[in-house]
Amino acid sequence: MTAAWAGICSSSPPCVGVSLQKPRYSYGNILARKAFTVNIPSADYVAEADYFGMVSGKDTDKFAATGLTPVKGTVVDAPYVQQFPVVLECRLLKTLEIGVHTQFVGEIMDVKVDDAVIGPDGKPDMARVRPFVYDSARQEYYGIGQVLGKAFSVGRDLKR
Amino acid sequence: MTAAWAGICSSSPPCVGVSLQKPRYSYGNILARKAFTVNIPSADYVAEADYFGMVSGKDTDKFAATGLTPVKGTVVDAPYVQQFPVVLECRLLKTLEIGVHTQFVGEIMDVKVDDAVIGPDGKPDMARVRPFVYDSARQEYYGIGQVLGKAFSVGRDLKR
Repeated sequence: MTAAWAGICSSSPPCVGVSLQKPRYSYGNILARKAFTVNIPSADYVAEADYFGMVSGKDTDKFAATGLTPVKGTVVDAPYVQQFPVVLECRLLKTLEIGVHTQFVGEIMDVKVDDAVIGPDGKPDMARVRPFVYDSARQEYYGIGQVLGKAFSVGRDLKR
Repeated sequence: MTAAWAGICSSSPPCVGVSLQKPRYSYGNILARKAFTVNIPSADYVAEADYFGMVSGKDTDKFAATGLTPVKGTVVDAPYVQQFPVVLECRLLKTLEIGVHTQFVGEIMDVKVDDAVIGPDGKPDMARVRPFVYDSARQEYYGIGQVLGKAFSVGRDLKR
């Protein structure tokens, strides 16, 4: 499924929160397996990511429809998307009821990064991963732009 | 303060989650006031945003140091930054302990958007707001790039 509301929510243990509504097919799957994966598509897969948010796994095989490949997780009991450059394997740690959404907090047990998107510094390179963000007001997807500055550095001149 | 881990976590009521560690000065302030604001800086303020993450309000007046202007919230008991284009006023709804972080879930009681960043369609215009994202691996700030496609539209051809 495509999840609009997700993000890192702790550094140690590393955790990611994903908010789902109860009618989603993934909702029951996550509770049953106590596990899920978070798959970050590159900009090449914006159509697939959009499609994943338009149909339900209840009545459609989304992998077959898109030609993407499900791979069994190596650490948790949930599949991930082979073609997506960054994958988090998570075990369900907590759930929190927030309005119409349930937030699933997953402990990140493994991070898989495609070798092809690793930069010369050994870290994921934004320009190769090419993730994208969602503007829920205009319902549009945006790419990531240029580097604006180094953290803990560009603000140093403001320090007395 | 600068918060790396934050994001929308429910649509109705609209809620945003922000994860903080206990030693942060903002931690006690949020608990005391049961309120906080989330302020989204434009790319013009990347140095200020970085600086906000380098010093503590315990011993530094960050508004004075940056020349930014604190404004009393109109709905909740917390200040916001006058110069930042998008501001969420939140009342503390829930807290969740997740590892070393506490996630503060705030119900968004008011959204303030600078008229100057509203597009012709009456919605916030990404190219005018110019928010930025944080790459925690490389510790760099990135701008937002180009529109890649319309949601619930670019994936339509994959639907049978």
